[in-house]
Amino acid sequence: MQKITILIHCKDKPNIIASVTNFIAEKQGNIVYIDQHVDREQNIFFMRLESEFIHDSFTADAFKDSFRNALAAKFGMKWRIYSSARKPKMALFISKYDHCLYDLLGRYNSGELNLEIPFIISNHLDLKSIADNFKIPFYHIPVTKDTKEAAEQKQLELLEAHKIDFIVLARYMQIISSNLIAKYPNKIINIHHSFLPAFVGAKPYHSAFKRGVKIIGATSHYVTEELDAGPIIDQGVTRVTHSHAIEDLIAKGRDLEKIVLANAVKLHTNRKVMVYNNKTVIFS
Amino acid sequence: MQKITILIHCKDKPNIIASVTNFIAEKQGNIVYIDQHVDREQNIFFMRLESEFIHDSFTADAFKDSFRNALAAKFGMKWRIYSSARKPKMALFISKYDHCLYDLLGRYNSGELNLEIPFIISNHLDLKSIADNFKIPFYHIPVTKDTKEAAEQKQLELLEAHKIDFIVLARYMQIISSNLIAKYPNKIINIHHSFLPAFVGAKPYHSAFKRGVKIIGATSHYVTEELDAGPIIDQGVTRVTHSHAIEDLIAKGRDLEKIVLANAVKLHTNRKVMVYNNKTVIFS
Amino acid sequence: MQKITILIHCKDKPNIIASVTNFIAEKQGNIVYIDQHVDREQNIFFMRLESEFIHDSFTADAFKDSFRNALAAKFGMKWRIYSSARKPKMALFISKYDHCLYDLLGRYNSGELNLEIPFIISNHLDLKSIADNFKIPFYHIPVTKDTKEAAEQKQLELLEAHKIDFIVLARYMQIISSNLIAKYPNKIINIHHSFLPAFVGAKPYHSAFKRGVKIIGATSHYVTEELDAGPIIDQGVTRVTHSHAIEDLIAKGRDLEKIVLANAVKLHTNRKVMVYNNKTVIFS
Amino acid sequence: MQKITILIHCKDKPNIIASVTNFIAEKQGNIVYIDQHVDREQNIFFMRLESEFIHDSFTADAFKDSFRNALAAKFGMKWRIYSSARKPKMALFISKYDHCLYDLLGRYNSGELNLEIPFIISNHLDLKSIADNFKIPFYHIPVTKDTKEAAEQKQLELLEAHKIDFIVLARYMQIISSNLIAKYPNKIINIHHSFLPAFVGAKPYHSAFKRGVKIIGATSHYVTEELDAGPIIDQGVTRVTHSHAIEDLIAKGRDLEKIVLANAVKLHTNRKVMVYNNKTVIFS
Repeated sequence: MQKITILIHCKDKPNIIASVTNFIAEKQGNIVYIDQHVDREQNIFFMRLESEFIHDSFTADAFKDSFRNALAAKFGMKWRIYSSARKPKMALFISKYDHCLYDLLGRYNSGELNLEIPFIISNHLDLKSIADNFKIPFYHIPVTKDTKEAAEQKQLELLEAHKIDFIVLARYMQIISSNLIAKYPNKIINIHHSFLPAFVGAKPYHSAFKRGVKIIGATSHYVTEELDAGPIIDQGVTRVTHSHAIEDLIAKGRDLEKIVLANAVKLHTNRKVMVYNNKTVIFS
Repeated sequence: MQKITILIHCKDKPNIIASVTNFIAEKQGNIVYIDQHVDREQNIFFMRLESEFIHDSFTADAFKDSFRNALAAKFGMKWRIYSSARKPKMALFISKYDHCLYDLLGRYNSGELNLEIPFIISNHLDLKSIADNFKIPFYHIPVTKDTKEAAEQKQLELLEAHKIDFIVLARYMQIISSNLIAKYPNKIINIHHSFLPAFVGAKPYHSAFKRGVKIIGATSHYVTEELDAGPIIDQGVTRVTHSHAIEDLIAKGRDLEKIVLANAVKLHTNRKVMVYNNKTVIFS
Repeated sequence: MQKITILIHCKDKPNIIASVTNFIAEKQGNIVYIDQHVDREQNIFFMRLESEFIHDSFTADAFKDSFRNALAAKFGMKWRIYSSARKPKMALFISKYDHCLYDLLGRYNSGELNLEIPFIISNHLDLKSIADNFKIPFYHIPVTKDTKEAAEQKQLELLEAHKIDFIVLARYMQIISSNLIAKYPNKIINIHHSFLPAFVGAKPYHSAFKRGVKIIGATSHYVTEELDAGPIIDQGVTRVTHSHAIEDLIAKGRDLEKIVLANAVKLHTNRKVMVYNNKTVIFS
Repeated sequence: MQKITILIHCKDKPNIIASVTNFIAEKQGNIVYIDQHVDREQNIFFMRLESEFIHDSFTADAFKDSFRNALAAKFGMKWRIYSSARKPKMALFISKYDHCLYDLLGRYNSGELNLEIPFIISNHLDLKSIADNFKIPFYHIPVTKDTKEAAEQKQLELLEAHKIDFIVLARYMQIISSNLIAKYPNKIINIHHSFLPAFVGAKPYHSAFKRGVKIIGATSHYVTEELDAGPIIDQGVTRVTHSHAIEDLIAKGRDLEKIVLANAVKLHTNRKVMVYNNKTVIFS
């Protein structure tokens, strides 16, 4: 049995849902999940559908061709179709903070994440031993002002050689270049340690402390050209009080960052995120 | 234009979604919302669908007949179809606590609730002036051990005379009889002041205080024969500490009760709740 | 019996706590609450203390004199002492939104708020009937560009005539003048319908919708010269999804606003808030 | 400099706070933290105080003697005094679930936890490699019905040999004997995967699924004779919907368990927990 996940968006028109469900029925698929959303302001239709196919002759490639010809053209759809047969490949970019790394690798090791991690890249050696313990190849690619371009070239070679599907910046602490962003659009997930759009940029916990907020947060988002302004995937918050010093905010924030980043990784991996207009539609 | 909301559940089988969406397309309806759920344990399929019909000849009754014949029989569906043309009618049962009453009437007055409140029933006169201020008919029906049956008879007469669709117990504090429950199955909403199933029965804040919990809650649910054991519609929680006395828990709980009850009223009114196996499916 | 609440802040030095507790003991007071906080960055000490006095000869004024001479001078304290004998007086400023008004008046009527509301001021007549229902004097003071100064003069006269202690802007929607702010420093509480410092200014729910945040919030704060930048008293948040339109955010936000504003009113009324460096210390 | 933390509880009487703060002042200590709580129902006074001592002659033992003679006897105090000079020693009991283990060891390695972990005990070998990676001695002590007593004897020997201060059951899944509980009263921390007192005992996520709750939780508590009924230290909750299968509840629950257990470990380690009447006072 093969499971196919279809993500569609297009201008809203009558009969899209009936047309798609008919198409699936004709192909002898059984729909096990359907959800849709319409952005009324923009008049855009979004749909996510999972279907199971049991007959022998089914192939994802033939299905895609047929879908393209029969439906996509007619409705002017932008679409993606994923087969359950292939696990997505995630590259981890890290630096010196270990909490998100431990958290993701712990989940990975327990089988909680439906993905593969071909390698970890870091600009520092501090966390190499953790990668070693989890038996994941670790590439040390230092980044300085002068070597930034060459470093990125090495990164790109690794990403391409391993057919990486998406990148997770687990507190990587480096600005990603336009070039890399363009090659992985809506495929680079960052965790920012504030409740965006509050406290963009460096040292958000310090800013939160100074402003005297009563709630702090963390935000996972896709990386775009503008710093910390990409489509938000998930956010988490926790209460703080005047009694918390900056280091307390940082410690409490670590727990938020871990969970909010792991949620984003799971949503992305399970094909539950669609991006439109610098926002996300997150299917359940 | 008329909007129709359809709620369906039946044994899960292939092609239900395609069949229903086709049916709507044939009737020239435009689907504006579809969501579904499958309980894999029980193999039950649930669906909620909203469709707009613009042609002149459309009538809800004819649609229902057609749906019954064309689809419901074939798939063995249990189904309900609601037209947007009719607002549900809610009876409010209250006693001496005013916080849920103020909250619901405030929302009602502001147009937040898509329903009508033909009357309020109370076993005490304490809150009559509030009903008067909001210009809602108030019936004082005292309940004692001896008059319980006669009181309920009066309640039933009012409910039937006003064609009431559902009842909300806004801290009514009286046990509802089997007879009334049977007449309004999954149509009587109660607010219980604990995080069910913890602290069933009387004085849950006292029990929560004694147990030393760090979080208290409130639960809205449909009333069934077994006390506080009906299908849960919504729950809310808030943190407490050792420094909160019982009266503090009660005060904090009031805010939970108001919101959790109002949520349940809105979900029920918007036909977003399906009940099955003493649980609810809550569509978004 | 009289209860005295003392709020102190001063440069942190050794022996402040012992000196103050000794002073209370000498006056035959029994301390029923003590809490303190030290801002290590600024080296500022904060303390809140409640003490009960049962002997006949106790008077708050004599106590204040004695405290001033014996302690305040020595440690360079800024301090406030409140007697339980006097309830604070709150003026409500409203406009056209009724949800915070209903909420506060409902709480007030139920005895949940330990304060008096001598009057309500509004620049519109829309909500007059609510004030009437709750039997609270309502003053209609329209504000236009031309009448702004005269309107404020009328407001000030009312505030002074009624010996108002603090002002609550329950979605008043007008900018408060520097003059009024200066007369009621850290005594004007506003509710802003966003998670500050995100979405300062007008139409924050529209901005939140546009940014695609997954959590929205509300913030109660003291009004200062800079718009929406005053010391934060309380914040609340709730989850939203892509499926929520702007009007859904507004509706969900109303529930946040009510609770976050009511919390601020209770904290202020119970003398649990100290302001320092544009931040608050909130005692439990 | 040495920091002393004092925890006191006794019958509430006037002048306790003044007496204790005076005592500290006489010993030339500087109070850097004071908080208190009175259980009005039981008339019990609780206090937590931190004081810094800088003079050379200070010793914790002499201080304790002096405190016992000067204050404890007079007020009938139960008290504990801890010096910052000694880190508490924690034994980890685990079984087959790795999420709490990874989480605690990740925090430990990062320096977030102010404690030592002399060893890990498990009744299974599954997680030995994790202990090895973190270079913590791992003792495999299998437990069967027949070997339970002998196994516990081995556990006790290890606990005593290493002068263990408290035990953490990180999803250990075995009932702790009365004997062990008696030797470590309020010193064995368990994580239960439900919002206690709901769903006591085995398979709470299955029970939560069956009941159809809309919020699930986790509870850290001290182990007492009665199963899952000991004093609650911390609780956490998260929302679930009908769309979550049991395995989803389990996965979401893991994140709660990690954080709620880590919070309990930190509160216990920082001497912020007092136990009374099967409840906890948790100082900030």
